Amino acid sequence: MAKTLTIIGLQTIPIVKEGDDIPALIIEACKRESVSIEDGDIIVVTQKIVSKAEGRVYDLENIVPSKKALELGEATQRDPRLIELVLSDTVEVVKATPEGLIVRNIQGNICLNAGADRSNVPGETIYSLLPVNPDESSKIIRKGLQKIINKRIAVIITDTYSRPFRRGQVDLAIGFSGIFPFRDYRHTGDLYGKELRVKNTTIIDEIASVTELVIGQSTEAIPVSIVKNLTWVDGDVGMSEILLSQDEDLFKGAL
Amino acid sequence: MAKTLTIIGLQTIPIVKEGDDIPALIIEACKRESVSIEDGDIIVVTQKIVSKAEGRVYDLENIVPSKKALELGEATQRDPRLIELVLSDTVEVVKATPEGLIVRNIQGNICLNAGADRSNVPGETIYSLLPVNPDESSKIIRKGLQKIINKRIAVIITDTYSRPFRRGQVDLAIGFSGIFPFRDYRHTGDLYGKELRVKNTTIIDEIASVTELVIGQSTEAIPVSIVKNLTWVDGDVGMSEILLSQDEDLFKGAL
Repeated sequence: MAKTLTIIGLQTIPIVKEGDDIPALIIEACKRESVSIEDGDIIVVTQKIVSKAEGRVYDLENIVPSKKALELGEATQRDPRLIELVLSDTVEVVKATPEGLIVRNIQGNICLNAGADRSNVPGETIYSLLPVNPDESSKIIRKGLQKIINKRIAVIITDTYSRPFRRGQVDLAIGFSGIFPFRDYRHTGDLYGKELRVKNTTIIDEIASVTELVIGQSTEAIPVSIVKNLTWVDGDVGMSEILLSQDEDLFKGAL
Repeated sequence: MAKTLTIIGLQTIPIVKEGDDIPALIIEACKRESVSIEDGDIIVVTQKIVSKAEGRVYDLENIVPSKKALELGEATQRDPRLIELVLSDTVEVVKATPEGLIVRNIQGNICLNAGADRSNVPGETIYSLLPVNPDESSKIIRKGLQKIINKRIAVIITDTYSRPFRRGQVDLAIGFSGIFPFRDYRHTGDLYGKELRVKNTTIIDEIASVTELVIGQSTEAIPVSIVKNLTWVDGDVGMSEILLSQDEDLFKGAL
C-alpha cells in the first residue's frame, strides 16, 4: 500500500574519457548489474562524466592568463590561469573576493568558478568545465539510450551547488531532456479543496538532490543513477525555464 | 551489485489535529502498510502535521493588525491580519514588495511569510505557522518513536522553499535530530587521491527534497516518508549548523 520510490546507483561505469559513448556505458553497466531500464525511469548523470566525454577538460599549464584574469586572480587570491579558464565560460562576474569567484556562466547559472572543478580529473592542474549546452547533452544521452532500449525515459544532468542562506552544497539540475521540470500545483486543490496559489515544485532539482545521496562525490564512482516509480509528464523545455534573471528574482536585494 | 536507496511514503496517516501523538500515528500507519522501521532508517515528516499537532494553527478572524502590519500589508498588498501573524514569528523583515514578504523568522530561516501557509489547513482564513523549535520537535518525534521501536533512526522535518536564482520550490530541512547534517568530503580524496577542498554536502536538505517527490504537496496526503539504505553518522547538532548569518554568506551582495 505504501508508495515506494527507488533510486539505483550504477557502480560499474568505468572512468570516462573524451569521446566515450555514455549511453553505451550506461547500458553495459545495467547489464553487468542486472538493472533494467523501464518506461518511466529517469536517468540521472553527474556533470563530470559528460564533461569528460565531451572533452571539456583543461590543463592550466596550457593557459596564459589575460590582464583581467591577473586582476581577478589578485582579488580572489587564486591561480590566474584558473581564472582565465573560468572567464572562458563566464558571461558576467558577479562577485570576486578571497572567499570565492561568483559568476553567471554561459549556461546561465549563478555559481562559483563557472562550474570549473578539479575533482575526479587526473592531475593537480587539470580542471573540467561544464558541458557547453547541458540540455543538448541530456538530449543526446536520452536519444542514444532510446536507440538501444526504446523506452519512455528522461535524462537529467546534475552538478553540485553552493547556495545562499544555507551551509554546504546540494546537487541541482544543470540540464535535462524529456521531462517537464515542474510539478505544478498552482491550479489544483489541497486536502480541503482550496486552490494552491504558489506551489510549483522544481522536481528536476529535487531528483538531482536525491541522486547525489546515492552518487556521492569522492571515490564512490557512481556517476549514474536511475530513479524508478516516480510519476512525471513529458516536456520539451530546457534550463531557461528554471534560471531566473535578476529582475525576475524575488530575492533580489535580499542578500 | 547496484547500490539502491528506497523511499517509502506512508499513505494512511490520518488528518492530524492539535495534541495528536505523531510517533504513534507513524507506527500505526507502518503496521497498516506493512512497513517496518529498521536500524538506519530516516523518518521524514512534513512541517504541516507537526504544526497542526503542536497547535500552531491560527484564524485571521481572531487577529487585530498592528500599525506595522497595516503598513506592510499596504506595501505587500496582502491581508494585514496575515502580516500580523507573520510578524509574530519574524525577527527581521528583509524585503516587502507586492511580489512577496521575505523575512528572517524566529527559527532563523530567510523565507516567505515566515513559513505561514494556508495549504492543507481547513478554512479560507486559517493559516499554520512553523513549529517554534523544529529541532526540538524532531527530537521529540525521534524519542517517541524509539520508545516504541528502539532502533537507530533519525528524524528530519521539512518545508517547501522558494530560493534565489531558480524558479519553483524545493523541500528543505527545517529541523532534524539524531543525524549529522553533512557528508563532509573536505579531508578525503577523490578518484585520483586529490583532496577535495570544498565538498561538504548538506545531506539533510537532499533527503528533504527527495521525500517531497514521494510526499507531494496537495491532495496526496503522504505527510511522512521513510528513507532506507542510506549511510549516515549520528549527530547532536541542529539547524544553527546550517543557517548562515549574512556575514558568513558567500552570496552576500550577489543578488
